[in-house]
Amino acid sequence: MRSKKLTTMEDLVLGIDIGGTFTKFGFVDIEGNILVDDKIPSDKHNDINHFVEDLKEAVIARKKKDFNLKGIGIGAPNANYYNGTIEYAPNLKWKGVINLNQLFSSAFELPVVVTNDANAAALGEMLYGGAQDLNNFIVITLGTGLGSGIVANGQVIYGHDGFAGELGHTTVKPDGRKCGCGKRGCLETYVSVTGIERTVFELLGKETDPSELRKYSYEDLDAIMISEAADKGDKIAKKAFEETGRLLGLKLADAVAHTSPEVIFLFGGLASAGDHILKPTRKYFDKYLLEVYRGKTSIQLSGLQGKNIAVLGSAALMWNELS
Amino acid sequence: MRSKKLTTMEDLVLGIDIGGTFTKFGFVDIEGNILVDDKIPSDKHNDINHFVEDLKEAVIARKKKDFNLKGIGIGAPNANYYNGTIEYAPNLKWKGVINLNQLFSSAFELPVVVTNDANAAALGEMLYGGAQDLNNFIVITLGTGLGSGIVANGQVIYGHDGFAGELGHTTVKPDGRKCGCGKRGCLETYVSVTGIERTVFELLGKETDPSELRKYSYEDLDAIMISEAADKGDKIAKKAFEETGRLLGLKLADAVAHTSPEVIFLFGGLASAGDHILKPTRKYFDKYLLEVYRGKTSIQLSGLQGKNIAVLGSAALMWNELS
Repeated sequence: MRSKKLTTMEDLVLGIDIGGTFTKFGFVDIEGNILVDDKIPSDKHNDINHFVEDLKEAVIARKKKDFNLKGIGIGAPNANYYNGTIEYAPNLKWKGVINLNQLFSSAFELPVVVTNDANAAALGEMLYGGAQDLNNFIVITLGTGLGSGIVANGQVIYGHDGFAGELGHTTVKPDGRKCGCGKRGCLETYVSVTGIERTVFELLGKETDPSELRKYSYEDLDAIMISEAADKGDKIAKKAFEETGRLLGLKLADAVAHTSPEVIFLFGGLASAGDHILKPTRKYFDKYLLEVYRGKTSIQLSGLQGKNIAVLGSAALMWNELS
Repeated sequence: MRSKKLTTMEDLVLGIDIGGTFTKFGFVDIEGNILVDDKIPSDKHNDINHFVEDLKEAVIARKKKDFNLKGIGIGAPNANYYNGTIEYAPNLKWKGVINLNQLFSSAFELPVVVTNDANAAALGEMLYGGAQDLNNFIVITLGTGLGSGIVANGQVIYGHDGFAGELGHTTVKPDGRKCGCGKRGCLETYVSVTGIERTVFELLGKETDPSELRKYSYEDLDAIMISEAADKGDKIAKKAFEETGRLLGLKLADAVAHTSPEVIFLFGGLASAGDHILKPTRKYFDKYLLEVYRGKTSIQLSGLQGKNIAVLGSAALMWNELS
């Protein structure tokens, strides 16, 4: 990996998005174009060292000769921007404190910066997405879990310890569903791809409506099936979206009472359901919002929906450090 | 009101704290000493103009000849720093949008700055109280209602519209107690001086424990009586503090998941109960906190408890504008 300035090789940054199921990566230029991207599984490696080795192999396999790799930006759940670590991530296989910065610096011999995957998403939205003119906004990522990145006064809020923005673990029902984090009733146990699947199964037990979702096992059901069933008017699917939107609307109204964002962006698998999730979320959001806030904060799909927002955002963070 | 620099008169700022029941004011020097303070009722004036006249009269009566008044800082519920207004304040008599900046500028012929009373409290804590070395903290004021001022990255969070930090109107129970704001189940209907009084009355109905609180009417009961009863081991009073602390702990754990403060300061009438409120709040806070945050955020009494934090904070804001 030569870094001589005499070459005409294109400067790129490697953006990595470590998720519960897959780790995605891409080579990103300074304007936010992803030139090559790919993914490997995250949940097949019990040892973080094997994961880093496999990821390095996959990256090298996709790296073209005319790339000049300048650094690595990593977004990961429960990641700490200050320390370069992931700490006690409930949705990852690797428990305790993992020093990602150290592992990736020594494997790739490049500068590394680490941030929470949802903070990376917020940076991506701010630099390349729908938040380019906003100083106060929130990005909510609705995947396996629920992640959040909060921007106030034009800055990502990291908090005193680097872990601010974990709205997925605010409490909806103190004695509610068991969460991967060990607590009960966390927002992400209701509002996420996994959350709406759990809601469908509770509704299949509670209600007697006929539903095409009755033919799937818990392991087979996915969010696209629920969305497609709702398209056809399936009552269970529609009720599941209504309840998911109610709880999301409720907690987003709480979020406004904290940092009063101008826009809340929804991103990820559950956001792909479009109006099925947007309509009930907006309805209940408005209901639970303090009067002084009403009509002022919009809930929108992310401007980067369909793209890899965390790959873009973590690359953007690295570009920022390099400049 | 002469402003000639040749005099040796002391430069002071008038700090005003408009509350639901009383409006307090004080003359504050640049070091945060309150030289003279007093109060007038807030809830006896249906017309805001009469209120401003009476307040002006009271201020002039207390103003000594050797004061040189440089400006006015006002803290008020639902106040907007950007516009100098109070808007739809549920706990005040004056409804709709009131332009405080305009009213006070023309009455006093002095520069005026307006902010939310709890944001003023946060500024007071940051400049003169327990938060002088902190960049990330929250102040919770527990009076008639529950106010909050959030500081992140060393700045007060105002949000896109100037109304950030209304934790009193986050939702605890969607179909719960009616709130002055028109919604149901807001945190301040449970956690505030009024909130714990409502809890005592619900418990007197629900439980059969003998209690000295059974001899008071709803109108006569106050927070000091509840605290004194708890001192003597009164079961109803102790249960009321336990439940109040549970809900406060729950929602403060949510607040950490937003902005991850290093310290949360409690201030005001309910905070005066000391350990009666601190112990259950800390216990449930720890229970509902995401693992990654545990043991890192302390809940403390305000460093300005017993002083007028909002008078100090709004004066500090004016000093800031003058410098």
